[in-house]
Amino acid sequence: MSESSIDVLLIMPTDPHLGEYVPDHWRIIHWLTGFSGSVATIVITHNFAVLFTDSRYFIQARDQLKGSEYQFSEPIPGQDGLNDWLNENIKYGSSIGINGRTISVSRLRTFQSLLKSKQINFLTDIDFISELWVDRPPMVFTAAFDHPLAYCGKDRISKIEDVRNEMKKKGVNYHLLSSLDDIMWLLNIRGNDIKYSPLLTSFALIDEEQVLFFSEENMMPLKLARDFDSLGIIMLPYEDTAGMLSTLAIDELILINPETTSVALFNALPAGMKIKEEMSIPARLKAVKNKTEIESIGNAMIKDGVALTRFFHWIEQNAGMVPMSELSLSDMLRRFRSEQDNYLSPSFSTIVAFNGHGALPHYAVTSETDSVIGSEGILLIDSGGQYLDGTTDITRTIVIGTPNPQQKKDFTLVLKGHIDLALAKFPSGTKGYQLDILARKALWENGLSYGHGTGHGVGFCLNVHETPPSISPVAGIGSKYPIEPGMLLSNEPAVYREGEYGIRTENLILCYEDEETESGKFLKFETVSLCYIDKNLIDSNLLDQNELKWLNSYHSEVFAKLSPHLTDEEKIWLQEKTEELESN
Amino acid sequence: MSESSIDVLLIMPTDPHLGEYVPDHWRIIHWLTGFSGSVATIVITHNFAVLFTDSRYFIQARDQLKGSEYQFSEPIPGQDGLNDWLNENIKYGSSIGINGRTISVSRLRTFQSLLKSKQINFLTDIDFISELWVDRPPMVFTAAFDHPLAYCGKDRISKIEDVRNEMKKKGVNYHLLSSLDDIMWLLNIRGNDIKYSPLLTSFALIDEEQVLFFSEENMMPLKLARDFDSLGIIMLPYEDTAGMLSTLAIDELILINPETTSVALFNALPAGMKIKEEMSIPARLKAVKNKTEIESIGNAMIKDGVALTRFFHWIEQNAGMVPMSELSLSDMLRRFRSEQDNYLSPSFSTIVAFNGHGALPHYAVTSETDSVIGSEGILLIDSGGQYLDGTTDITRTIVIGTPNPQQKKDFTLVLKGHIDLALAKFPSGTKGYQLDILARKALWENGLSYGHGTGHGVGFCLNVHETPPSISPVAGIGSKYPIEPGMLLSNEPAVYREGEYGIRTENLILCYEDEETESGKFLKFETVSLCYIDKNLIDSNLLDQNELKWLNSYHSEVFAKLSPHLTDEEKIWLQEKTEELESN
Repeated sequence: MSESSIDVLLIMPTDPHLGEYVPDHWRIIHWLTGFSGSVATIVITHNFAVLFTDSRYFIQARDQLKGSEYQFSEPIPGQDGLNDWLNENIKYGSSIGINGRTISVSRLRTFQSLLKSKQINFLTDIDFISELWVDRPPMVFTAAFDHPLAYCGKDRISKIEDVRNEMKKKGVNYHLLSSLDDIMWLLNIRGNDIKYSPLLTSFALIDEEQVLFFSEENMMPLKLARDFDSLGIIMLPYEDTAGMLSTLAIDELILINPETTSVALFNALPAGMKIKEEMSIPARLKAVKNKTEIESIGNAMIKDGVALTRFFHWIEQNAGMVPMSELSLSDMLRRFRSEQDNYLSPSFSTIVAFNGHGALPHYAVTSETDSVIGSEGILLIDSGGQYLDGTTDITRTIVIGTPNPQQKKDFTLVLKGHIDLALAKFPSGTKGYQLDILARKALWENGLSYGHGTGHGVGFCLNVHETPPSISPVAGIGSKYPIEPGMLLSNEPAVYREGEYGIRTENLILCYEDEETESGKFLKFETVSLCYIDKNLIDSNLLDQNELKWLNSYHSEVFAKLSPHLTDEEKIWLQEKTEELESN
Repeated sequence: MSESSIDVLLIMPTDPHLGEYVPDHWRIIHWLTGFSGSVATIVITHNFAVLFTDSRYFIQARDQLKGSEYQFSEPIPGQDGLNDWLNENIKYGSSIGINGRTISVSRLRTFQSLLKSKQINFLTDIDFISELWVDRPPMVFTAAFDHPLAYCGKDRISKIEDVRNEMKKKGVNYHLLSSLDDIMWLLNIRGNDIKYSPLLTSFALIDEEQVLFFSEENMMPLKLARDFDSLGIIMLPYEDTAGMLSTLAIDELILINPETTSVALFNALPAGMKIKEEMSIPARLKAVKNKTEIESIGNAMIKDGVALTRFFHWIEQNAGMVPMSELSLSDMLRRFRSEQDNYLSPSFSTIVAFNGHGALPHYAVTSETDSVIGSEGILLIDSGGQYLDGTTDITRTIVIGTPNPQQKKDFTLVLKGHIDLALAKFPSGTKGYQLDILARKALWENGLSYGHGTGHGVGFCLNVHETPPSISPVAGIGSKYPIEPGMLLSNEPAVYREGEYGIRTENLILCYEDEETESGKFLKFETVSLCYIDKNLIDSNLLDQNELKWLNSYHSEVFAKLSPHLTDEEKIWLQEKTEELESN
């Protein structure tokens, strides 16, 4: 820093694609600090270093940074700790260094606008880490594979045509894709470069005639390469992306998403080139699942439900006899999922959290934190799978032993919220932030709340967190777009009692058109995840008739769809778990 | 236009203060077209002229523009008709003329950014209307009067100090106030320059030592003028505002609200002066009512409820005997209100709308549209009063004759929404857009909806529509600010059946702190408006136990608070109107 005259160094948690999951090669913050959460920023000055993160990771950061040279910054709720810190501490005329490959255009602008009056010099052409990190894991490039039409329902050339039609409407000549899932969706390919998402590290540039696909050429099977060739999809080396961008004609208009385009690539565009900035076209198109995808998802949900049923059945049969820990259960669940057809991998780091660990919304068990499952307590399991025919994400909370009244009440309030959102009917044009309260109302009425959003979009054999769909109190970027028929979202209200337990009930919900009245079109959700909800934790007196009806009808659907795939023993067990609940 | 080389002329509905109600001197659109709605923009080219307005005024605009030379632009729901029109029709390199005194800084920027790629020349230093409008009404300046401390609870110098403290925190040297209600609140004065709001046409500029008050000097009573003098409030001629702004030092920082500052005043600031743009400090401070104001509001609500009770009693006693029309009822209601202590004026144009007229959410009766109140139908009355001790805004819908099942169902669904919002409990930090759905849910479940927001902030002896408080599906500017204890809002769900009737039930609700739990502070609303709700229109089978309990408890409060001020006859009548309703 001294050599480069940098006063403050910012280290971002992202890679050149600005996605949620980054390959080990780019996990700089984890290497520097040991903090394993996915959202954090480190500020290093000549005197000290501090890590900022959001509310989901407060407890985890406090633990993982104990004894390190990094302070954890404890934000005030509702405030952005990092921005406040920068605003108060950065001196007039300072130089701030950030590796331009790891920060998005819009994030850098936020910093610039925040510090506008301080005449800050932002240096983005720096990279101190590559030199310092001697045993840095190399970039991984795996083999691409075709995503069959039988699952995804639309061939690559039709998707490319759809994108080009949207480009024409916008008068755009080029469209840069930097998000890996956009590219996978467009080209109907998948890979294994990133943990938890079947992605290939790549960029793409679409124009009226060609698609330039920047990737590792020799990882492309011959059949795919030939097909690409015949469709005008040109393969180029990954490292050539910035160079190619610098050759574009300045009188043409390029569409980029400033949220997912790195400052380094943006700066590679020729000075003066016309730039249109908005969400990528594939992001909006792929959020709406087509008919084939919806059928595929239905099938993936049955497989996922069978794996979960076997898993919970196994727990109950073996509790007290086989030793169980968070880690062993996490492995066991992966094993059950991996027995299913077309299974690829977990869709995110499985959360198996017993008692107090459940109060950390994004707890990831490690050998250091691994906790034995005792004979009494609340066990929260949030997991998902990547299948060729869909991506799943489901949370169930079960009780080991006998629940106390507070646990039953908390569980039932969360369930009420879950059901009330699942039952929502709303006019076309409604935004996710309008619906969010449905999942919170029962908790709020009892003085409880949770600090995260209620629902995120879910990809199709792609990222488990997909924008723009969102159901959240925050009216952010994704919230500009209404919820549309075909969108797949999670529904995951929760309650966290620090040091005691966490309760979360999560299913995926698919939006569909219900009816058209004189007030316009009305939409509803179909719950597509299939797994029983633990009745031992339900106080049925707290459910109203509609909620009880939903629960019983959901349970009868779970049994009907899963039982044909279960053993007789499992079937009898599930029948009991899904038996009708009556109001006391 | 030809002489000035202007291709397109935009005529805005606003005056130099960008408020909702404009004096007749500035009602250019009404003069030009006869359209009386408060929101509209006119576009004039060399070939034609077109008027754009929002969904509230669609039906009204269609009627009022029939046979005029102005087309009414029928927008596509969810789209901004004007912006789309400009985007599609304005030619590259055109000159657009707008009188800079009648457009806000932020509105002009929206136009500029919309037409960015078209190299448009915006001419804002023009005024064609003054020459053409020969019988233009003159500007009105009325006498100022003191707003007594007994009602408003905080003296002017304390308010000025509060604003200066906020300015210091923000490092701001000057603060320009362009909204009349901000200035009235700050200086504890009122006037009669604007219909429906007790305002004086004025600007103010606050610095660390002085408050410059630009107004009509000779309308200031001596006692007030002396008090101002002693507090460093300097009176200057209204016309000197722009000139004074042009003399400010460019190295000082001025705070302005770009939403309420005209382009003309903005351009008067010296080039290069540092400008901070955000909501004005008085806007945020005055939105939170103090203890004295809350007590005053309670008293104003009793007076308003007494006037309304007498009015509805009078209707019922005289129906079928005295001829009644929308216009005569509107006059009658004003007469009842004017009998109350400290009454100043209606707080907006009273809506008395029988049957089909009720389907126009902002219907204003005129002698042309006046409709006789027949023996069967739905009568919607939305009205409010300005009192020295508060501003009211209340809507009641009553049935004349016997309601049909659809009317009862519609009314009860609206009431359910009204009650569900009134009963809301929510954590501190919640935004209005999060709560909006509570008022809509029952309607949505039945395929019904309404096209306007659910709640607006309400001033204290000031504007009936006050920002930032808002409960709306739109996460706009006001929605950046959470709902805080002390904020006063309306709660007005509705349903409109075009050609048949409109139903709206509106009370004002005051936010207060309910309890603090381990999840933080929780807030609730107290309903402060006092008037019975027509039980003839309620289908009690559609209300759940909580809703029924709210209704009965509200009715018992209405009777308890109003009956001491009523005649025996009125009292007996109100007792019946507020008698407990039982579930069938």
